[in-house]
Amino acid sequence: MKASQFFISTLKEAPADAEVVSHKLMLRAGLIKKLSAGIYNYMPLGLRVIRKVEAIVREEMNRAGAVELCMPVVQPAELWQETGRFDAMGPELLRIKDRHGRDYVVQPTSEEVVTDIARQELHSYKQLPKNFYQIQTKFRDERRPRFGLMRGREFVMKDAYSFDRDPAGAQASYQAMAQAYRRIFDRFGLRYRAVAADSGAIGGDLSEEFQVIAATGEDAIVYCPQSDYAANMEKAEALAPQGPRPAATQPRQKVPTPGKSTCAEVAELLGVPLANTVKSLVLATDRTNEAGDIAGTQIWLLLLRGDHDMNEVKVGKVPGLDQGFRFATQAEIEAHFGCKPGYLGPIGLQKPVKVVADREVALMADWICGANEEDHHLRGVNWARDLPEPDAVADLRNVVAGDRSPDGKGELAIERGIEVGHVFYLGTKYSRAMNATFLDENGKPRHFEMGCYGIGITRLPAAAIEQNHDERGIIWPDAIAPFTAVICPIGMERSEAVRAAAEKLYADLCAAGIDVILDDRGERPGAMFADWELIGVPHRIVLSERGLKEAQVEYQHRCDTAATKVALADILAHLQGRMGA
Amino acid sequence: MKASQFFISTLKEAPADAEVVSHKLMLRAGLIKKLSAGIYNYMPLGLRVIRKVEAIVREEMNRAGAVELCMPVVQPAELWQETGRFDAMGPELLRIKDRHGRDYVVQPTSEEVVTDIARQELHSYKQLPKNFYQIQTKFRDERRPRFGLMRGREFVMKDAYSFDRDPAGAQASYQAMAQAYRRIFDRFGLRYRAVAADSGAIGGDLSEEFQVIAATGEDAIVYCPQSDYAANMEKAEALAPQGPRPAATQPRQKVPTPGKSTCAEVAELLGVPLANTVKSLVLATDRTNEAGDIAGTQIWLLLLRGDHDMNEVKVGKVPGLDQGFRFATQAEIEAHFGCKPGYLGPIGLQKPVKVVADREVALMADWICGANEEDHHLRGVNWARDLPEPDAVADLRNVVAGDRSPDGKGELAIERGIEVGHVFYLGTKYSRAMNATFLDENGKPRHFEMGCYGIGITRLPAAAIEQNHDERGIIWPDAIAPFTAVICPIGMERSEAVRAAAEKLYADLCAAGIDVILDDRGERPGAMFADWELIGVPHRIVLSERGLKEAQVEYQHRCDTAATKVALADILAHLQGRMGA
Repeated sequence: MKASQFFISTLKEAPADAEVVSHKLMLRAGLIKKLSAGIYNYMPLGLRVIRKVEAIVREEMNRAGAVELCMPVVQPAELWQETGRFDAMGPELLRIKDRHGRDYVVQPTSEEVVTDIARQELHSYKQLPKNFYQIQTKFRDERRPRFGLMRGREFVMKDAYSFDRDPAGAQASYQAMAQAYRRIFDRFGLRYRAVAADSGAIGGDLSEEFQVIAATGEDAIVYCPQSDYAANMEKAEALAPQGPRPAATQPRQKVPTPGKSTCAEVAELLGVPLANTVKSLVLATDRTNEAGDIAGTQIWLLLLRGDHDMNEVKVGKVPGLDQGFRFATQAEIEAHFGCKPGYLGPIGLQKPVKVVADREVALMADWICGANEEDHHLRGVNWARDLPEPDAVADLRNVVAGDRSPDGKGELAIERGIEVGHVFYLGTKYSRAMNATFLDENGKPRHFEMGCYGIGITRLPAAAIEQNHDERGIIWPDAIAPFTAVICPIGMERSEAVRAAAEKLYADLCAAGIDVILDDRGERPGAMFADWELIGVPHRIVLSERGLKEAQVEYQHRCDTAATKVALADILAHLQGRMGA
Repeated sequence: MKASQFFISTLKEAPADAEVVSHKLMLRAGLIKKLSAGIYNYMPLGLRVIRKVEAIVREEMNRAGAVELCMPVVQPAELWQETGRFDAMGPELLRIKDRHGRDYVVQPTSEEVVTDIARQELHSYKQLPKNFYQIQTKFRDERRPRFGLMRGREFVMKDAYSFDRDPAGAQASYQAMAQAYRRIFDRFGLRYRAVAADSGAIGGDLSEEFQVIAATGEDAIVYCPQSDYAANMEKAEALAPQGPRPAATQPRQKVPTPGKSTCAEVAELLGVPLANTVKSLVLATDRTNEAGDIAGTQIWLLLLRGDHDMNEVKVGKVPGLDQGFRFATQAEIEAHFGCKPGYLGPIGLQKPVKVVADREVALMADWICGANEEDHHLRGVNWARDLPEPDAVADLRNVVAGDRSPDGKGELAIERGIEVGHVFYLGTKYSRAMNATFLDENGKPRHFEMGCYGIGITRLPAAAIEQNHDERGIIWPDAIAPFTAVICPIGMERSEAVRAAAEKLYADLCAAGIDVILDDRGERPGAMFADWELIGVPHRIVLSERGLKEAQVEYQHRCDTAATKVALADILAHLQGRMGA
């Protein structure tokens, strides 16, 4: 490609509404252009990156035996009503009425349509396993789209769906996809982790996220440097502490804590470690009657150590809370605790409350909690002596760095990541809802065992940039760079020698199959270099009249601190060497 | 590709709602699968065809210097309001409200968005010319979607938009695209014609349609076998007949024609050629006041020879009718003609009517028309003697086969075609509406001169099938076949020799870069051959144990009436020879 026939449009400053570095750099480098909130034009440079991502994904999906098809962007509501998602999904699902008033959605994902295809096309166990995938435009009407392609509304996703005859087959399909994803992410040239994720109601361990490591990532990734344990924060188990519970050593005592409503404030006031305090979180579960009205409400008190955070996914697995819960209202709290939030605790309740203690709290002695009296806390609280043992003990908290690894092989560490892929075992959730069956060897209809596998095609470039950039701009890995190499001739319009050498080198690199751009725009060297550093092309070759007199060019990798002089005759081999590196 | 790892799903019968052959064959061959009215899944085989079409289009667009980008499917209404199309377009424009109640559309085309990009990105004449294109999903909410991908609601289009500094530049861009389109359509391997099309209000001759020739095509294409003249029916000019008008030879006479309300019926009744009759068409134009209310209505009488059809585009260019017209109501007709439709004519009007005669009619003598009296016609009618010369004379009719070619080089012929491409000079229509300007050499803002260029990516396979099929199925040209060649081994599961030879041949063809599929499904020969004939893979190679004993295979092109025995050692060369043919 020659720059004069392409479209390069860089900006000195990013628009004010770009908050994260990838969004800023994608706008500044001219990869994307905002059209509306969360909706972007993929500009020529950005589209080249997206196409390279697509090509790698497509090759590896095909290699893994998946078959590509393409499902419509606009999908009829009927299928979404079959699974209940038309109503269950919130306003994120973009709903449309056509000219005849019929309901449609803009697809955010395609479980319904692909299951509809399977129930019509896959009649027999002999046709299984089958894995269909597409690379297609999606839409999710996010309430607050932001961070450019990181959390846009319109985006491109690769979504694959496997159909198997039984759970063992589905697990094999799942593992094949997990392997393919490792090959895909290896080829992207990014640092990433495959982390265990929560598999929701399905159970089992067949859910993994592929996280691109980046300090700016939204997700916390838990891993064990001494082993290959890795999970996301939702999933990572906090092991039960090693008991037994210490004996009580302090008397229970009510202490005034005026205006100190957080554990941290109380610990500071009393001069004790935060880990000696216990925080009280009040939840509610509603029981509904057949008409769908609320027939009764149970209030729950969750107790966590003051320095720990609640993990909602884990809480949602506690028996009794596993059908959905909400935070209690202020009125409910006051009715049960006789006190406003900030000074709550498990002692002296006005009405029955179910108490669930985190594993850590269940083994604490001499702890501090709210007194259920404004501006007062209790210290020296002890289980059994001061209050009954909790109704339940469970892992309710997020792990923290230094916790023991669940595999027993070391201590956990935490880093940040950006979720770009997900493999997930679905079981028969969709095939049952849509009665999608095949005939087994005995001629009996059976529901498909399914899995789904996504990669955020347009999110990946943003994640790559969050991981790989510096103050001058983007640093692309070769595999997904908009161009692998750029030839920057200095004074091409003045010097016939420079022009001829540049054109010849360009032709040679093209012939060698290298995706190269020749910057023939006639920009001054400073502006030209700044553009390519911002755009992040990994390999740069500079030709100048002076260098050519000595038959030399300058090579610089985007990560190099200085340029290297290379004989013009050797530059292709040099470049190939650096590309191989 | 091996069939066992792919997805083949053929049907014996097409669903009843498939009317045209391409729709039937695409469903039967498993290329597409209906999801909703006018909305189709592109199944694995169909997607392969679409991707090949896309690849050819992309290569030639790039070669022509156009730059690919991608504009969102969901576009904000604001831009569409700037050009007025948000209101002007009918229900074909699919309108959406997002969760915040803001208006969006699903793009049917992208003039607004690309013009918005240009006005932000193309600041200077130095950046021109520039041609942006995309290959992207579109949606048009057709009232009556039908014919499968021929007139679907969701479809894929390649749309390109050129930006130039002046009309001469725009014409050069237009010509470059017209040339690229010829290369693209040549590469598809289809018989097609580039025909002049009407360019609407812009004027000039810079509008061409690319029509794939097919007897079942919706469009009539006019061409001159003796020259390179070709136009669509809307555009093709009916030359003025060579005068002078013959002298009157008959008296005017009112004749009873009870129940004969069409020219054909009257000609038959009176025993005269249909070409002696004149048909009367009544139109109306409304004048509106500033409030938009109708302030006055003008009634028009169009006179065409009985054997000619009205051409609405030509009528829309008659001065006075060029701001829009409608057919007159029954009440308007009766008020002006004193008679019901069926017996209307230009003589004996009740109120003033503007009379426009087709060029042919203006030179007729002794003609027949309605008498403005039920069940009566006039014969022997003559201009000047029986009625004043018409208010206007114009080309109002469709040409017919045998008409003189407008280039004076022969007679016109007519065939049917399917419009798959269109190149169009837009002028400043959009750039003015959206105030999209660049700075010229003098620093003065000027509106972009634009062109737009479309190819129906998903319609093309349907058009290809309408042109190339037989009773057994589709016959693909090599360039866009889902697979170029198929290897059909007979008894592969029984014979190790067949299996080994098939696998080796498959590997050899793959290595030679041929897009081949090995049918390893274990189907019986009859079913296997029927599948591939239906699917339309152009080159078939059959391996059998008997043939292999003589080191022979059977080759058959989809168009051949019989198979040819070819030495196994020569089959690659033989295949390449037939592919080159």
